[in-house]
Amino acid sequence: MQLIRFGAPGAEQPGIHKDGKRFSTAAFGEDYTETFFATDGINRLRAWLDTNPTLPEVPAAERWGAPITRPSKIVCIGLNYVDHARETNAEIPKEPILFFKSTTALVGPNDPVHIPRGSEKLDWEVELAVVIGKRATYVSEDDALSYVAGFALHNDYSERAFQIERGGQWVKGKSCDTFAPLGPWLSTPDSMPDIKSLRLWLTVNGKTFQDGNTSNMIFPVPFLVSYVSQFMTLLPGDIISTGTPAGVGLGFKPAIYLREGDVVELGIDGLGTSKQIVTKLPS
Amino acid sequence: MQLIRFGAPGAEQPGIHKDGKRFSTAAFGEDYTETFFATDGINRLRAWLDTNPTLPEVPAAERWGAPITRPSKIVCIGLNYVDHARETNAEIPKEPILFFKSTTALVGPNDPVHIPRGSEKLDWEVELAVVIGKRATYVSEDDALSYVAGFALHNDYSERAFQIERGGQWVKGKSCDTFAPLGPWLSTPDSMPDIKSLRLWLTVNGKTFQDGNTSNMIFPVPFLVSYVSQFMTLLPGDIISTGTPAGVGLGFKPAIYLREGDVVELGIDGLGTSKQIVTKLPS
Repeated sequence: MQLIRFGAPGAEQPGIHKDGKRFSTAAFGEDYTETFFATDGINRLRAWLDTNPTLPEVPAAERWGAPITRPSKIVCIGLNYVDHARETNAEIPKEPILFFKSTTALVGPNDPVHIPRGSEKLDWEVELAVVIGKRATYVSEDDALSYVAGFALHNDYSERAFQIERGGQWVKGKSCDTFAPLGPWLSTPDSMPDIKSLRLWLTVNGKTFQDGNTSNMIFPVPFLVSYVSQFMTLLPGDIISTGTPAGVGLGFKPAIYLREGDVVELGIDGLGTSKQIVTKLPS
Repeated sequence: MQLIRFGAPGAEQPGIHKDGKRFSTAAFGEDYTETFFATDGINRLRAWLDTNPTLPEVPAAERWGAPITRPSKIVCIGLNYVDHARETNAEIPKEPILFFKSTTALVGPNDPVHIPRGSEKLDWEVELAVVIGKRATYVSEDDALSYVAGFALHNDYSERAFQIERGGQWVKGKSCDTFAPLGPWLSTPDSMPDIKSLRLWLTVNGKTFQDGNTSNMIFPVPFLVSYVSQFMTLLPGDIISTGTPAGVGLGFKPAIYLREGDVVELGIDGLGTSKQIVTKLPS
């Protein structure tokens, strides 16, 4: 099953994506919130769909929203692909590097990305995002996948000067509004190809910059879910973004950063594609 | 006005604190959520109190909850007191260091603090927490205080090995469950003494370890609100925890860390006191 949300920002309605079309599940009466996931919403929705096979189609012109509502947190994994760690001159981590992204950064998959005020080093990072399905604390690696509601495509936008040159912790360069386009859909695990071998790619103005595979993750998804749950409680709907492969702007010599009007497109096997146009922050 | 919440964890009800007593405002019909703050809840509650002067008193035995519900984020400021920066052998920051604490760490002011599994370096940090009152993005320093709903006492518990020795970013040592006891109350600005000169202190088993004053902040509250809002949007109910003065366990040679049964007490002028007993994590 592929969950989607559609409509104006802040007023999204829930739906599903099937055979290339979007259908509204507003009649089911629940948005894709923490409560939805915590109360076995995915299975309840499946059962409801069985008895409600005819759903209103969503007009193609309707905006795509992020496929879940605002989660309690977005946990990101730093330097989780060997090639990306090398290109940024970082050591291969001995254990996962964690950082947070503000949940206010979350937007729809095709919304514009805004250049923050004072930004000169806006960079991209295609990532596989894991959405948590039930409260997780001290979860074992063996059990970890049973805590996963699904997966989604994420572009972990980063302002490298804010992140690296402005003192201290990375969160400063990861949390600006529009820095977390998520979707187009959340795919449940049963609808996914093998998550250990997903191609993920990103282009800027049609030129390929990232073309990696989740098989090259240093720490795979079950390990990450288990690991994060040793340090904090993950709630239903929370996101773990699992790191980016090589090919970010920071890795080039000289570095390449996004400019107004640039078009960023990205995709992951089974999770569709998204597209963001780099836009000046509305004043 | 001093806002409180009381009752069992996860089932707290709202109230106020006045003349040393707690009164339920459940009849007002709103908890202290993002929506409450976003819709001028403090002034609406004041008006309601004028016409409802007789409120049920909260029994003294009732647990104190955190004075606000789960915010979208807890932003913490690192090394914001000169003496604390020195004791941790850190340089004086040129601009504020930001890090996040998971909102799942939030608990009541007198709840036990749990030693996480594998923890050996549990440390304390008395801090002045600022609660945001309205959506803030690119706020000027001059306007910043108009975005503040109030202030509260916060103990920014930290696991120093998780924070410093486990790779990467501080969030790992700041986000465990129970690591953010907040309260006893949220004080609105008009009920506060001068926030530029508040004594803040902390004892362990009755011995004073921290005894500082907000007059020694490197970056004062209006600057911090403005600064954070340059990097992310602050939502109503969000917390900025403004850093700790000298006297944390990490600063001693050898370092002093908390052990099971230790009693931590802390306070800030105008914001009451709180007390946490260091407890093994229930298995």
